[in-house]
Amino acid sequence: MKKGNPYGTHRVIEPKGTLPQPATKIDNNMEIYDNEILIDVQTLNIDSASFTQIKNEAGGKVEKIKEIMKNIVETRGKHQNPVTGSGGMLIGTVEKIGPALEGKTDLKVGDKIATLVSLSLTPLRIDEINEVREDIDQVDIKGKAILFESGIYAVIPNDLPENLALSVLDVAGAPAQTAKLVHPGDTVLVIGGAGKSGMLCLYEAKKRVGVTGKVICLGHSEETIERVKGLGLADHYIVADATNAVEVMNKVSEATDGKMVDITINNVNVPNTEMGSILSTKDDGTIYFFSMATNFTKAALGAEGVGKDVNMIMGNGYTKGHAEISLEIMREDKNLRKVYEDLYA
Amino acid sequence: MKKGNPYGTHRVIEPKGTLPQPATKIDNNMEIYDNEILIDVQTLNIDSASFTQIKNEAGGKVEKIKEIMKNIVETRGKHQNPVTGSGGMLIGTVEKIGPALEGKTDLKVGDKIATLVSLSLTPLRIDEINEVREDIDQVDIKGKAILFESGIYAVIPNDLPENLALSVLDVAGAPAQTAKLVHPGDTVLVIGGAGKSGMLCLYEAKKRVGVTGKVICLGHSEETIERVKGLGLADHYIVADATNAVEVMNKVSEATDGKMVDITINNVNVPNTEMGSILSTKDDGTIYFFSMATNFTKAALGAEGVGKDVNMIMGNGYTKGHAEISLEIMREDKNLRKVYEDLYA
Repeated sequence: MKKGNPYGTHRVIEPKGTLPQPATKIDNNMEIYDNEILIDVQTLNIDSASFTQIKNEAGGKVEKIKEIMKNIVETRGKHQNPVTGSGGMLIGTVEKIGPALEGKTDLKVGDKIATLVSLSLTPLRIDEINEVREDIDQVDIKGKAILFESGIYAVIPNDLPENLALSVLDVAGAPAQTAKLVHPGDTVLVIGGAGKSGMLCLYEAKKRVGVTGKVICLGHSEETIERVKGLGLADHYIVADATNAVEVMNKVSEATDGKMVDITINNVNVPNTEMGSILSTKDDGTIYFFSMATNFTKAALGAEGVGKDVNMIMGNGYTKGHAEISLEIMREDKNLRKVYEDLYA
Repeated sequence: MKKGNPYGTHRVIEPKGTLPQPATKIDNNMEIYDNEILIDVQTLNIDSASFTQIKNEAGGKVEKIKEIMKNIVETRGKHQNPVTGSGGMLIGTVEKIGPALEGKTDLKVGDKIATLVSLSLTPLRIDEINEVREDIDQVDIKGKAILFESGIYAVIPNDLPENLALSVLDVAGAPAQTAKLVHPGDTVLVIGGAGKSGMLCLYEAKKRVGVTGKVICLGHSEETIERVKGLGLADHYIVADATNAVEVMNKVSEATDGKMVDITINNVNVPNTEMGSILSTKDDGTIYFFSMATNFTKAALGAEGVGKDVNMIMGNGYTKGHAEISLEIMREDKNLRKVYEDLYA
């Protein structure tokens, strides 16, 4: 049996010397190396920016969506959208565990897991696409995937429905990072607060700011904001177009008596929301960019351009305990869980 | 006289409602609004990523470089490279100050200043290009520019040559951010340490880590590394290709007895260096991306893909006192100043 590298470099076809994520093509042969785990895949949860792009390219036609997805995997050996660069995650059953992982992993054959590493670096083979659930970015397939030794995962909990767990785990990094960043007394703005990761961020922020803090939810439509209001996830609600920096700044200024916010968490999967985030945040404040549509240059030069001394953090989908933190929200807040089940599971 | 907005939104032609930086076209008519400053421009210091792209597109031909630059400014009303999105900065003399700024600014007509906001948002008119100094990314022109009310600047100090001050101010954010981030005892890796901003970062890092810390300089060529060695700016030197993540990781591991580093500062203006930075940094460590070639998605998904819990910060070209901090280095270290004068001034 061939020996594999912990980061999966042995699977890289081109360009040589890179890791699987930046690689344009990786080997998706399903014969495992000694430190790999073979997964029988059941569902792909496509990254929201990627799925939106695919749907648009397909003009909303299901057969065309299937064709685009199959084509991506055939070309690259992984489901990495060539336009957005992003992937997603998957759910499946452990089928084989490489002998070099014995004693190193607590997984066993037959465990149902969600991989918490991106599809943009996961060797994948699609044999058949069974169902496209357009409204929740999920696609049921027949196929196989490989988890590398460094790859993170979560065993699907018994007390939560599978699709619910998958939807929550897909965005697990955002609420966990929010929990780490927010302190009592902070004023926190969640841009895209009515969305899939936004609602979980609001929940964690509200829990952490306490009675002396304030949580502001900004969303683009009255309808979604009403839903979040019903759940009581924030102290103040703003309806605004996140790409309109000037509108966002003015409305946040109004909500904070001109003081602006300590922490902005940006979850909107549309381009050009960097500047609204920067203008809404106090000097010495922090902006956490979780949106995959964030443009590095626009953020860096934008802050400089308006002379704002803010700390801008790039969203890391992984932080210790992120799966546990986000799944726990579903147990703590029955109403939020109900909304999550209706919308995403 | 027309009233202007502090952020310059009154100059945006398209798309409406955005700020000057993300705008594709701004008004470069040189009749000032009441809160603007008119500058008689002498030198443009083009952002290194941008100038490299322009030089490549021009096949190194000076006349072609001039043509590309003029064309950018004619199309956009500002020198924002359409490929890299980045700008640079300029040096010039204050020609007119809007009446609304009276008592708000300490500038006076005739002051020689460097604008510290990006050219990517600065209204600019080029009448003539006099000289292209290819080796230092500087271009002397005849022309005018506008500084908005929120725009930051530095008065050129009397005790340092102008071109030297301009070169230092161009990268002032990086050493100032390094000074804020680094603590005594830290192990710090500067990727691109032999470059223009890298050397200043090394200097600040070395000053701050003290005798219990360690500074590692990584550069791509023996020649430039030898130069930095001669200046004694680091404790350990690595020659490696920063885009080869696996090579970088192995060499940093060797230099740190497998412990890796607390803080990585990335100054390399080439794509695909995100992963080398991530793999070189300890869990819970910090990566400061100052390179304009940084790709947000590659960094975010890259860290998740290898299960690294690192704090990734987007370089903000502005932090309080950045001009003073970086200019002071030239007074403190005569040898570094000599090298800087030879290379960049």
